[in-house]
Amino acid sequence: MKNISLSPNGVEYFLPDEEESRKERLLLEDITKKQREQGRKIVAVQGMGFVGCVMAAVVADAEDNDGNPIYYVHGQQRASVRSFWKVPIINSGVPPVNSSDKEVPEIFHRTVKEKETFRATWSNYAFEVADIVVVDIQLDATKPAFGEAERGYCDLSAFRDGMRTLGKHIRPDCLILVETTVPPGTCEKVVKPIIEEELANRGIDVVKNPPLIAHSYERVMPGANYVKSIRNFWRVFSGVNKKSKELARQFLEDVLDTEQYPLTELENTNASEMAKVMENSYRATNIALTLEWAKFAEQIGVDIFKVRDAIRKRKGTHDNLLRPSLGVGGYCLTKDPVLANWSMEAIFDLEGSLDMAINAVNINDTMPLHTVDLIKQVFPDLRDLEIAVLGVSYLEDLGDTRHSPSETLVKVLNESWAIVHAHDPYVEYWAEMENVPVHDNIEEAVKDADVIIYAVGHKQYKDYRPENIVQMSGKKPLIMDCSNFLNDAKVAEYKRLGCVVKGVGKG
Amino acid sequence: MKNISLSPNGVEYFLPDEEESRKERLLLEDITKKQREQGRKIVAVQGMGFVGCVMAAVVADAEDNDGNPIYYVHGQQRASVRSFWKVPIINSGVPPVNSSDKEVPEIFHRTVKEKETFRATWSNYAFEVADIVVVDIQLDATKPAFGEAERGYCDLSAFRDGMRTLGKHIRPDCLILVETTVPPGTCEKVVKPIIEEELANRGIDVVKNPPLIAHSYERVMPGANYVKSIRNFWRVFSGVNKKSKELARQFLEDVLDTEQYPLTELENTNASEMAKVMENSYRATNIALTLEWAKFAEQIGVDIFKVRDAIRKRKGTHDNLLRPSLGVGGYCLTKDPVLANWSMEAIFDLEGSLDMAINAVNINDTMPLHTVDLIKQVFPDLRDLEIAVLGVSYLEDLGDTRHSPSETLVKVLNESWAIVHAHDPYVEYWAEMENVPVHDNIEEAVKDADVIIYAVGHKQYKDYRPENIVQMSGKKPLIMDCSNFLNDAKVAEYKRLGCVVKGVGKG
Repeated sequence: MKNISLSPNGVEYFLPDEEESRKERLLLEDITKKQREQGRKIVAVQGMGFVGCVMAAVVADAEDNDGNPIYYVHGQQRASVRSFWKVPIINSGVPPVNSSDKEVPEIFHRTVKEKETFRATWSNYAFEVADIVVVDIQLDATKPAFGEAERGYCDLSAFRDGMRTLGKHIRPDCLILVETTVPPGTCEKVVKPIIEEELANRGIDVVKNPPLIAHSYERVMPGANYVKSIRNFWRVFSGVNKKSKELARQFLEDVLDTEQYPLTELENTNASEMAKVMENSYRATNIALTLEWAKFAEQIGVDIFKVRDAIRKRKGTHDNLLRPSLGVGGYCLTKDPVLANWSMEAIFDLEGSLDMAINAVNINDTMPLHTVDLIKQVFPDLRDLEIAVLGVSYLEDLGDTRHSPSETLVKVLNESWAIVHAHDPYVEYWAEMENVPVHDNIEEAVKDADVIIYAVGHKQYKDYRPENIVQMSGKKPLIMDCSNFLNDAKVAEYKRLGCVVKGVGKG
Repeated sequence: MKNISLSPNGVEYFLPDEEESRKERLLLEDITKKQREQGRKIVAVQGMGFVGCVMAAVVADAEDNDGNPIYYVHGQQRASVRSFWKVPIINSGVPPVNSSDKEVPEIFHRTVKEKETFRATWSNYAFEVADIVVVDIQLDATKPAFGEAERGYCDLSAFRDGMRTLGKHIRPDCLILVETTVPPGTCEKVVKPIIEEELANRGIDVVKNPPLIAHSYERVMPGANYVKSIRNFWRVFSGVNKKSKELARQFLEDVLDTEQYPLTELENTNASEMAKVMENSYRATNIALTLEWAKFAEQIGVDIFKVRDAIRKRKGTHDNLLRPSLGVGGYCLTKDPVLANWSMEAIFDLEGSLDMAINAVNINDTMPLHTVDLIKQVFPDLRDLEIAVLGVSYLEDLGDTRHSPSETLVKVLNESWAIVHAHDPYVEYWAEMENVPVHDNIEEAVKDADVIIYAVGHKQYKDYRPENIVQMSGKKPLIMDCSNFLNDAKVAEYKRLGCVVKGVGKG
C-alpha cells in the first residue's frame, strides 16, 4: 500500500517509479520547448492544495489582449501517498477540491483540456524550466496544549525542504513568488538564505545574481466565489529587492483583475507577510470580543445578535463586528496569530508578544466548551445522553472540516460519555474524526435525540421546520442554537412544542 | 468664593439664593402654562454637559409638519460652583461648550432667542412640569491604578442622587429617558427601584402607575458635525415596559432625523445599555490590537500604517481597523469597557469578566509609555532634555483634553525630569494639568527643543514645514511622530536636515 495514493473518491494510483519520472521529465522538456515557441512563459506552482491548484488554473487561464494565453503552468505536486492522486485527477481536467463554485470545474476543464495551458506533474524538472515559481506549500501552526496558543509554534521544516528543492533546481533569474501564509520574516530570513546557499552550491554568484523572491498573499474564500476570491480581489505584494517587486507586479497584473482591484505594493516582504496574518488576527480578535460579550448577554436577558445589528448600522466604523458562535474554525483565523506571535522570537529574536491576538485564539479555541456548559444547565450529567450535532464543517454551506469547532465539541461530548450523532450534508467522511460517522440523513441523526445542536449555519438547517424535527426526534429535545440560526418565530415554535431552547449569546 | 461660579471666559456668577429660586419657580410655572397653551409638551434635560446642552437645543428645535415647535425645553443644571455659570450663558443664547461646528452657536441662538423654546434653569421645578425628562448626567469610571482597568469601578452615587431628585419631583406619567452612558442594568436595577421607592413615598401606586423609563444612547462626535451627530444619526433605544418604549419612540421620532436614520428598538434596556458600551469596547479593542502590532512592526522595518491601508481595502469586513497612536483618550473608549466589566458583578452579581475589552483598556492607557521608550532609544537619560509636545487634546482639531494620552505622556516626561513645552492651538488652559502651561505660539514651544513630539494630528501640525520647525528649534531635534502625521516626504526632509525621526508603528 505504500506506493499507492488513494483519491477521495476511492481510486488508487500507483506512485510513479524512476522510469516514469524519467519519461515525465522528457515530456516536460518537450512541452516547455513547444510552449516557449508560442511565446509563453513557464510557471510552476509548488503545491496543489486548496489555494495552489486554483491559483494554477487562474494563471493558466490568463490571456493577453489578443486572447492568447500568457503562461503555461506546471502544477507541481510531490509524489506522496497523501497527495499524488491529485496529479492524474487534475490532468483529467477535474479539480482536486470540492467547491460550490461552478467556476472551479469550468476553469480546470478549460485550462487543462481546452487551452491545454495547465498540467500537473510530480517532477521537480518543472522548477528547472520555470520563469516563475508560485509557492503554495501548506504551512501550519502547532498548538501543543488546548487553550494555550501562546505556546504555539510553526514547524518550518517541510517548507524549508520545499525551498531547498527550489534552490537546487531553479534558474537564477526565476522569480519565487511565495503565496503561502508564512510567519513575518520568512522570505527575508528563511527563503532568501536557503536559496542563496543552494545557488552558491551550484556555483552561481549570488552577489551578481541576487535571488528574486516576492510575497503576495491570497485571500481565498472557499464557497461560491472561490475562483473570484483569487482572481477578482484585492492583492498585496512585495519583494526582497526592486527586481523582485517589478516581476511580481507584472505577473499579478497579467493573471489577476488588477484594474478593478488595484494592487497594493508594500515596502518589503516583512510588511506583506505581516499584513496577511494581521488581517486574520483582526478578525480572530473581533470574534473573541463578541464571545465574551455573548456570555454576558446570555445572563442578563439580552440577544447579542440584535445588539450586534444595532451596532453595525454604523457603516465603515462598526460594521466589521463579527458574530459569536460555537467557536472559530478553518485554516486562517486559528493559526495566523500564532504564526505572527511565534515569529517575534523565533525569527526576529525579539521580546514581546501579541497578547490581544493570542488571547483571542485561546478564547476562540475553547469556545465550544461554552456550548457544552449551556447544555449542562439543562442536563448536568451528559452520560448516555443522545446528542445530535448538526454540522461538522467549519463554515456554512461548505464541507471543509479543518479545525472545525464541532471537532472540539464532539470530543468533549464524547469524553462526557454522551452518545453523539453527527450530521452534515456536505461532509461524507470526517477526516479529523475518523471514528465519528457523519449522517447525511437528518432523520437518523435526530432520532431519539435528547439534545439537538444547531452547530453550523448550513442553509438546510435554517429551512427545517421545528415540528418535523421534534417529530423525528420522538422526544422534546433541548434545542441548542450556536449562532442565531433560529429566528424568533422558530424559537417560539420549538417552545410551543415543549422544547427548551438555548442559544449562544441569547439571553 | 464658595457661592460664585466662574465661567471659562472669566465671568463670575453668584449662585442663586432662596429668594431667587422662589422667583425662578414662579417664572417656570408661568412659562409652562403659556407653552402648554400653545400645545407644546414640556421636556426637562437633566445636566447641561457636553451632550445634554446640545441635545436640549435639538429637542427645542424640533418642529411639527406645520413648522411649529413641538417641545419647550428646560435645560436643568444644578446650581453648583463648577457648573452654574452655564445657566446664564445658555440663557444669553450662547452655547456653554466650544465647538468647531458652526451649527452649535446657531442652534443655541435660534432656540433660546428666536423660537424661545429653550431656557436653562437650576430649579428642580422643571422636573415637576415635565412630560419627558432626558437624563444627561455625567457618569465616569474610576480606575484606581494605572494599567489595571480590571480594578476599575463606577461610582453611581451622584447618578443615584439625580434619579432620587427625579423621583421626588416628576409626575407619575413622565417618561424618564436616560441618555447617559451607563453600566448595563442601570435602568432596570438602579433607576427603576429608586423611582418606584420615591413615587411610593409620595403615595403613588407604582403597580397601577409603573414608572416610565427608557434608554437611548447618544453617539456624539465632537467636532465639525457635533449637532448632526446627535440629530442626524443612528439611534438605538429601549424601555422598561411597553409604554416606555412607545413614548421613547415617539419622542425620538419627533426630534431626530429618523427617516434618514431609522431607529433600532431593542428588547430591553439591558440590551440598549450594552450596545453602547460594547460598540466602544469594540473600538478600544481594535486600537489595542494595532498598538501591539505597531511595536512589532517598528522592530522589523515595517510601516504599520501602510499595512493597515492594505488591509482596509477590504470594505465591509476589514475597513474598521483603527490606527496606532500615542494612546487613546476621550470620554468613551477609556471608560465604557470598565463600566461593562464592573456591572457584571456589581449590578448582576455574575462571575466572569470581559477580558478582551479590559486588556485593551490597559494596553491603550499605558501606550504613551511606548513613545517615551522610543525617545529613550535616542536619549537614554531624559533629565533636562527640552521636549516640545505638539498637541494635548485627545483628538485632532479639537480642544477637548479629557483623558488625553498627552496627559500620561507629559506626566511621565516630567517624572523623568525632562523640561516639557506643551503646545496646542485649541487648548488655552489644560484643566487636567494645571501646572503645565500650553503655548499657542509654536516658536516658543519648539525653541531649543531636543525632542519634538507630534502627539496629536491637528491640521496645523501637518502643515508645518520641516525646515521651519528645525530652524525654530535652533537644533537638530529628534522628531517623534506618534501616528503617521508626517508623510514620507516630510520624514525624508527632516532626515535631510540632520534630524533623527522615529515613529510609533514605523519601522
